[in-house]
Amino acid sequence: MSQREQTPLQAHLYKIIFGTDTPSGKWFDLILIFAILISVSVIVADSLTNIHRDYGVLLQRIEWGFTFLFTLEYMVRIWIARNRRAYLFSIYGIIDFLAILPSYLAILIPQTAPLLIIRLLRVLRVFRVLRLVGYLHEANQIAGVMRNSWRQIFVFFLIVITIIVVFGCLIYVLEGPNNGFDNIPVSVYWAIVTVTTVGYGDVVPVTVAGRTISALAMLVGYAIIAVPTGIFTANIIEKRQTKRTPLNCPQCARAGHEDDARYCRHCGSYLRTDDEENKPV
Amino acid sequence: MSQREQTPLQAHLYKIIFGTDTPSGKWFDLILIFAILISVSVIVADSLTNIHRDYGVLLQRIEWGFTFLFTLEYMVRIWIARNRRAYLFSIYGIIDFLAILPSYLAILIPQTAPLLIIRLLRVLRVFRVLRLVGYLHEANQIAGVMRNSWRQIFVFFLIVITIIVVFGCLIYVLEGPNNGFDNIPVSVYWAIVTVTTVGYGDVVPVTVAGRTISALAMLVGYAIIAVPTGIFTANIIEKRQTKRTPLNCPQCARAGHEDDARYCRHCGSYLRTDDEENKPV
Amino acid sequence: MSQREQTPLQAHLYKIIFGTDTPSGKWFDLILIFAILISVSVIVADSLTNIHRDYGVLLQRIEWGFTFLFTLEYMVRIWIARNRRAYLFSIYGIIDFLAILPSYLAILIPQTAPLLIIRLLRVLRVFRVLRLVGYLHEANQIAGVMRNSWRQIFVFFLIVITIIVVFGCLIYVLEGPNNGFDNIPVSVYWAIVTVTTVGYGDVVPVTVAGRTISALAMLVGYAIIAVPTGIFTANIIEKRQTKRTPLNCPQCARAGHEDDARYCRHCGSYLRTDDEENKPV
Amino acid sequence: MSQREQTPLQAHLYKIIFGTDTPSGKWFDLILIFAILISVSVIVADSLTNIHRDYGVLLQRIEWGFTFLFTLEYMVRIWIARNRRAYLFSIYGIIDFLAILPSYLAILIPQTAPLLIIRLLRVLRVFRVLRLVGYLHEANQIAGVMRNSWRQIFVFFLIVITIIVVFGCLIYVLEGPNNGFDNIPVSVYWAIVTVTTVGYGDVVPVTVAGRTISALAMLVGYAIIAVPTGIFTANIIEKRQTKRTPLNCPQCARAGHEDDARYCRHCGSYLRTDDEENKPV
Repeated sequence: MSQREQTPLQAHLYKIIFGTDTPSGKWFDLILIFAILISVSVIVADSLTNIHRDYGVLLQRIEWGFTFLFTLEYMVRIWIARNRRAYLFSIYGIIDFLAILPSYLAILIPQTAPLLIIRLLRVLRVFRVLRLVGYLHEANQIAGVMRNSWRQIFVFFLIVITIIVVFGCLIYVLEGPNNGFDNIPVSVYWAIVTVTTVGYGDVVPVTVAGRTISALAMLVGYAIIAVPTGIFTANIIEKRQTKRTPLNCPQCARAGHEDDARYCRHCGSYLRTDDEENKPV
Repeated sequence: MSQREQTPLQAHLYKIIFGTDTPSGKWFDLILIFAILISVSVIVADSLTNIHRDYGVLLQRIEWGFTFLFTLEYMVRIWIARNRRAYLFSIYGIIDFLAILPSYLAILIPQTAPLLIIRLLRVLRVFRVLRLVGYLHEANQIAGVMRNSWRQIFVFFLIVITIIVVFGCLIYVLEGPNNGFDNIPVSVYWAIVTVTTVGYGDVVPVTVAGRTISALAMLVGYAIIAVPTGIFTANIIEKRQTKRTPLNCPQCARAGHEDDARYCRHCGSYLRTDDEENKPV
Repeated sequence: MSQREQTPLQAHLYKIIFGTDTPSGKWFDLILIFAILISVSVIVADSLTNIHRDYGVLLQRIEWGFTFLFTLEYMVRIWIARNRRAYLFSIYGIIDFLAILPSYLAILIPQTAPLLIIRLLRVLRVFRVLRLVGYLHEANQIAGVMRNSWRQIFVFFLIVITIIVVFGCLIYVLEGPNNGFDNIPVSVYWAIVTVTTVGYGDVVPVTVAGRTISALAMLVGYAIIAVPTGIFTANIIEKRQTKRTPLNCPQCARAGHEDDARYCRHCGSYLRTDDEENKPV
Repeated sequence: MSQREQTPLQAHLYKIIFGTDTPSGKWFDLILIFAILISVSVIVADSLTNIHRDYGVLLQRIEWGFTFLFTLEYMVRIWIARNRRAYLFSIYGIIDFLAILPSYLAILIPQTAPLLIIRLLRVLRVFRVLRLVGYLHEANQIAGVMRNSWRQIFVFFLIVITIIVVFGCLIYVLEGPNNGFDNIPVSVYWAIVTVTTVGYGDVVPVTVAGRTISALAMLVGYAIIAVPTGIFTANIIEKRQTKRTPLNCPQCARAGHEDDARYCRHCGSYLRTDDEENKPV
């Protein structure tokens, strides 16, 4: 890696900006999170018609102040990063970049609506709070189980989407354009609203046949939620219970040994030295 | 079985059409899935009034093109299948047949609405994607647990339907036809909407007694979802749980070895004779 | 118990009516369930205004026919029951009685609405289907876990109701009678609709403060469902995993031994004879 | 601690008021809970317009009666408490104080609406019923698991709130003020209503793009509920799991004994010395 030598100033700033061990590092993160929240609040407040009318110019100036501060912070982060490329293309690096980009793009592009979405992605920077409060482990655990459940969740969603399309088409044929089910996309939208048990009530069946199909869709949606919940729960429990060692057997090279195993359960050869094994499960 | 000898051409096509191991087999499946999605999109687009008016004839021609392609594919599949009868009556074989049937029936039957549903069953062919991305194992696992949970889910649904009928009847008596609860079927429809927590709001109680019963129905529906979730979760966990062998190590006498272990993971001595271990997990 | 001697006719009828082992016993139960479903359908159909107008008299006659049949069946059941008192006061005995009572009461009481509810309790007789399809074990298991979870579900409901009362009162103060929150009962009704995620939309907050509180109530209701689900799931898993023997130690009299235990784990005395212990877990 | 000597009268009252072991202690708690429920009902009834008009003065007098009784009870509790400071600052002590405070404040402050909320906090006193019915253990268990799950629930809520803000902003840009999405706060409110699957239907998307995003928000909200449920379930199971001792039987060498076992359940020999076994589960 291109791990460069840091100057003393860089090393000092690194501890404050990237670290959370020192009091100054904690204060920096705390101030940063408040700055992010205020900056997001400014964008939200600007969307209110009368606030925009009365304080629009002021809010835009505050917005520019935050953009300047975040740009400065971003540059310092690049300057002090041990591995610049790694920071720039890390998730945090990209979010830091996206948090300042829209304000500059707004000068070039007059139409601001689409930029608003990217600007609000600034809210993602709030996840830095996890490191501050020491909850990174929990976040990683949830992310890890989700990654493990990915394949099953994909299959589940394929099933749900098929159910939704079939119900959407059924209701389209049974209710028809007279009752608000103008076309298949609207009917599929209705099916999603129904199967997920949201139930806006903006498009509802009125015929007996439509209501019967609708009742069926509700019952399916109500019960099928058990599937992802069950899969996810089983995956969490599995991950927590059987902790596997990353070691491979030096003789037969098979992996997947339990955490406290000293000998390979397939060929019986010794897995590791005694001093390595005293980590409790 | 009537497992026939395949000609070299048949064997080659078999690898492409039924297999996913070769690059050409993967490409075939990928193109097929895109063809299915486009063909379904054509049906969906045709349901939009102004698209039907402007492009109806064009869409119908595209639809016929896909029908022709799928018919060709279906015939090739039958021709090359190792066991024709098995393919024809497999789930995939039936779906492949249903995917082309409605277009031909449409010539005979002028009234097209009911055919639309069968035509959209074409979307079920999308499940071929599972084999392509190697998620068949996950799909089978979910299907397996559902099959195991079937009896308990049946009992749960019997309970839920009874609760729904009782609540539907109660609200019919308490609210009556003046407040939209015209008859018992409508009241039962309302009970389903309420107990499944969908809550359209198209039929709502207005009297104090009706609202009280309604509140009870909501609380029951809110809490009772725990039952199928719990059953399904327990069934998944049970199925997955790493089976432990009842054997103790003959040397160090420790128990709790995994079902497929041949050597003790604590002292490395041999656990059992080879003929005992070939039971798969 | 008053277990009487049965005559051959009684014993024969007993096998048909109470049993499901013989073909005639299965047929009897099957016919009975169809009779119940038709009888319930008649009541439901009679609630439809135009069916009542056109076929009201006919339906009433059919209803009387079923009442006569069920009365006959009830009397035969009493006559052949091995233990009459036990049958009469069993759950099935009471439901069988309630299924015929309302029709007779209707002669005495002209106002029929309240009787309708009891009459529809006839639907509960459908649970006989469980015995027919051999799902009694599953029903008992669900009932057993619910009984075990009872205390925790009670505590959970106390928490939920308190949350609902607090949210209902908050919204009443914040929104007030101008926005439909006329009094605390209505506000509590709204809180139940919101926390259970039903969301009819008949009473909704319109002020900023009301919507904020409302958002909080939704998030609480959305997340807190994890509590009963978790408790119920844990109880099912627990019940399935550690099967305890009902035996008490003959020396120290303590219970709660694991299913495969041969010696008391508290005092070391022998729990049972060898021939009793070979039941697999 | 300042644990004072109690006079015989104090000790007697202590048994009645703080205890539930004696019949008089049980009766006291039962009467207290009924008094709380009636007192809360009076407040609720007073919020109904016509009852307030007709019986407002009467209800206020009853309310004062209860305030006097609860004040008396509160003073007696302080007088007889073994450790006064501990009682005053315990959760129950604070709730007991809040239950009587608002009535006195109402004399000083004419504007009563905000006081109503605190007055209804009196309902929290109902949790005393847990001690009466012996469900304190269950309440503590739920509270304990919630405390354990706190960090993961925090991370989950951070994710959910970020999802909600992003969806709220997306719909604001796509739908705009013409369709009711006047500003970002309203759009975020809509996002909460949708993601939690409440679905009031007071603000709904009407454009195709808005409905597509809306459908995505529903599917995310529908599936993501699996996360807190899974975490909570895993935490309960983990907490309950019968702890196994790592000891092996010195005679038959089998392992897997429960944590509190003193004798091997397979051969009946003594498992360990007495000083090792006093760790409670």
